[in-house]
Amino acid sequence: MEKICGCLVSDTVSFNEFAQNENKVVCIKGYIHRIREMTGFAFVIVRTARDVIQCVYAPEFSSYRWDDKLCEEACVKVTGKVVASQDAKGNTRYELQIHDIEILSLPAENLPIVINKKQLDNIQLNTILDLRPISMRNPKERAIFKIQEGIARGFRECLMKNGFTEIRSPKINFAGAEGGTNIFKLDYFGKEVYLAQSPQLYKQALVGVYQKVFEVAPVFRAEHHDTSRHLNEYTSMDFEMGFINDFTDIMNMEVKVLRYIMELLKTEYSEEVETLHIDLPVIDEIPSIKFMDAKELIMKKFKYQPQDMKDFDPTEEELLGKYAKKELNSDFLFVTHYPSKKRPFYTMDDPADPDFTLSFDLLFRGLEITSGGQRIHDYKEQVEKMVKLGMNPELFETYLMLHKYGAPPHGGLGIGLERLTMHLLGAKNVRETTMFPRDINRVTP
Amino acid sequence: MEKICGCLVSDTVSFNEFAQNENKVVCIKGYIHRIREMTGFAFVIVRTARDVIQCVYAPEFSSYRWDDKLCEEACVKVTGKVVASQDAKGNTRYELQIHDIEILSLPAENLPIVINKKQLDNIQLNTILDLRPISMRNPKERAIFKIQEGIARGFRECLMKNGFTEIRSPKINFAGAEGGTNIFKLDYFGKEVYLAQSPQLYKQALVGVYQKVFEVAPVFRAEHHDTSRHLNEYTSMDFEMGFINDFTDIMNMEVKVLRYIMELLKTEYSEEVETLHIDLPVIDEIPSIKFMDAKELIMKKFKYQPQDMKDFDPTEEELLGKYAKKELNSDFLFVTHYPSKKRPFYTMDDPADPDFTLSFDLLFRGLEITSGGQRIHDYKEQVEKMVKLGMNPELFETYLMLHKYGAPPHGGLGIGLERLTMHLLGAKNVRETTMFPRDINRVTP
Repeated sequence: MEKICGCLVSDTVSFNEFAQNENKVVCIKGYIHRIREMTGFAFVIVRTARDVIQCVYAPEFSSYRWDDKLCEEACVKVTGKVVASQDAKGNTRYELQIHDIEILSLPAENLPIVINKKQLDNIQLNTILDLRPISMRNPKERAIFKIQEGIARGFRECLMKNGFTEIRSPKINFAGAEGGTNIFKLDYFGKEVYLAQSPQLYKQALVGVYQKVFEVAPVFRAEHHDTSRHLNEYTSMDFEMGFINDFTDIMNMEVKVLRYIMELLKTEYSEEVETLHIDLPVIDEIPSIKFMDAKELIMKKFKYQPQDMKDFDPTEEELLGKYAKKELNSDFLFVTHYPSKKRPFYTMDDPADPDFTLSFDLLFRGLEITSGGQRIHDYKEQVEKMVKLGMNPELFETYLMLHKYGAPPHGGLGIGLERLTMHLLGAKNVRETTMFPRDINRVTP
Repeated sequence: MEKICGCLVSDTVSFNEFAQNENKVVCIKGYIHRIREMTGFAFVIVRTARDVIQCVYAPEFSSYRWDDKLCEEACVKVTGKVVASQDAKGNTRYELQIHDIEILSLPAENLPIVINKKQLDNIQLNTILDLRPISMRNPKERAIFKIQEGIARGFRECLMKNGFTEIRSPKINFAGAEGGTNIFKLDYFGKEVYLAQSPQLYKQALVGVYQKVFEVAPVFRAEHHDTSRHLNEYTSMDFEMGFINDFTDIMNMEVKVLRYIMELLKTEYSEEVETLHIDLPVIDEIPSIKFMDAKELIMKKFKYQPQDMKDFDPTEEELLGKYAKKELNSDFLFVTHYPSKKRPFYTMDDPADPDFTLSFDLLFRGLEITSGGQRIHDYKEQVEKMVKLGMNPELFETYLMLHKYGAPPHGGLGIGLERLTMHLLGAKNVRETTMFPRDINRVTP
């Protein structure tokens, strides 16, 4: 009987390991990214899992006999010697002197777009998205989603290190968390159910179990508007903390998480940061301004007349971003104490001024990336607020179990992963930083 | 202007830190789990984020004046001195001598079930599930999902360490991966779309980008049967590896992942392993048997007559589990080379015998926890197989982009997180190990 030992040994090296393998014979596996035939030799550029590696073919040092079958997007195993040379600036460059090429598979057709340039040039976003499985082979495109991986990983790692528990809330819900009409309905064996808009009610319930919880998972919003910053399915990074002293504990935790993420990107994702020319924010302290003070600033300093005194429009967010950068030397700005009327039913009002709430948004370079705040934990207070808002508390029986049977002071926040990625990259459309975006016009690929 | 520094300092200690704080005054926060009033003193048992801590109240060493408001499920901050004593067996026990109690919040009502016993006694599963936000406060119940956290975390960590990239496939799909009728339909702005049954097609596409990818995310199956091991929404832990030498690479990677998970549970989740009396499997080598040999074994050794020669029924899985344990001293058994007729259209047939496939299942203590295998990577071969199976390749244009424009030899697998948790715990129903299970009769809470 055969035994599977789990002792999988990689027979390949990554580009990072080239330096320590100088003049040694190593093996790489990947796609042929580009072939440049020269007189008497050829450059064969191989795209491995994370790198693009220059290999040099010449008949005199290779047992491989050049074959015209060898084409772009063929999958190959290349054996060769790691050789070092100096570039014009005196930096050491490594390349592979090809000893042999083994063709593992060949494409059936040529690519419909050029992917082997530094970036996808002159290709419309819709085409890029239609051809995602192909367009992502471009080094810059795929780097975007390595960065995204790093953000989600940093979020999880930092919270776990700080005693948070990972939860799994259901995506098929019996009621909408935030209510409203932006909700997808589903026929579930004859019952009408909904796709989760947010893990809100579940993460609050689980604060009563684990004190501090988080989830990174898809959420669904049936928003009809088709803007550059909205998606109908996106990844929400949520956390919820119990036993807080006040709502600044949540903001402090967010600062800690963001700092951890940026440090992780700097250390573990430096190649992609470089490929994408990302200007990583340095997070020291993040300034915090009250909502009404921010409104005043917008009107007095920027002479801008807001349409809505209960929320910010994109222009106002941009102005606040400029202000934070110029005057406070910060890429981030917390805005606190939003008006009660614009925050959900579970938000705790400020006892000092109940027209406002113990809530906050975080702006990053002039774009809102987080909403958070303290929640009501007292049963009577929550029921009264629901009634005041015209809601029927009986429909929220499960949700109110937390409050009825004891809830600690708590609060939390949500961060849209794709939107944060977009803004970190300076991209203009959130679809650019979503692997397979879903919007009112797109459910493919 | 206020500044948020991210320098959140915890003012509490965990039970693990008691030993190093002997005779020192520390602070804990949590729920009052149980109160036992004695003559002249009281035991106040506090349930913190991960522990249940015995505190002792006596008026002579406390500034707190006993108050009958103090009740079970009140949220409190307790300050006190860590004191050590010896139990009957000579082990050191730590408890907290209460100096002060601050009541942070009070429940509005008494709990409808008793949660402060070691386990939930004589409560029906349906009640436990109906009252999840409350029943999970029981130490044994909540330990289940810490173990589940550890499994998912181990899966991700091990794969990341081995060069895998985390992907995010959409849950709203334009076509079903596996086809068939077990699929939830959704009205998406007037279009009929589907909830993802599996990330299969996406993870294959992304093997063409990152070589090795994984995802831990919900999947949805509209299965009508109501069994103890099926759910309509569950968490699928998937990976897919490109540039494999053969399909045993996938099995080896799985052994590596499972070994990593069990080691992580042993080290980082030892409290929960103990609370739940989990018998963690030791994973050395995992034996592997061919499907037809397994059938022969079942018939000859166990004198059991299978109904279906193309698949196993639960009894057969159990028999194979017994065989693996008794004869091979293994909790796990790979079964390879399943009949082609029972595997999906993307499965690669065995060139040596095309009635069978380069696929496998993994049985853990007599229950299937994984299906995996090598996939077809050649375009022509995949199209021909689709046609042979009566499928229309034109409907799979996006999926076939991978094959058409070059795919490496590849394969992968999926593991149901809740089902693995169930079997590791020796639970009888997968709902016990699902936070908020969804089945044909249940969409709440």
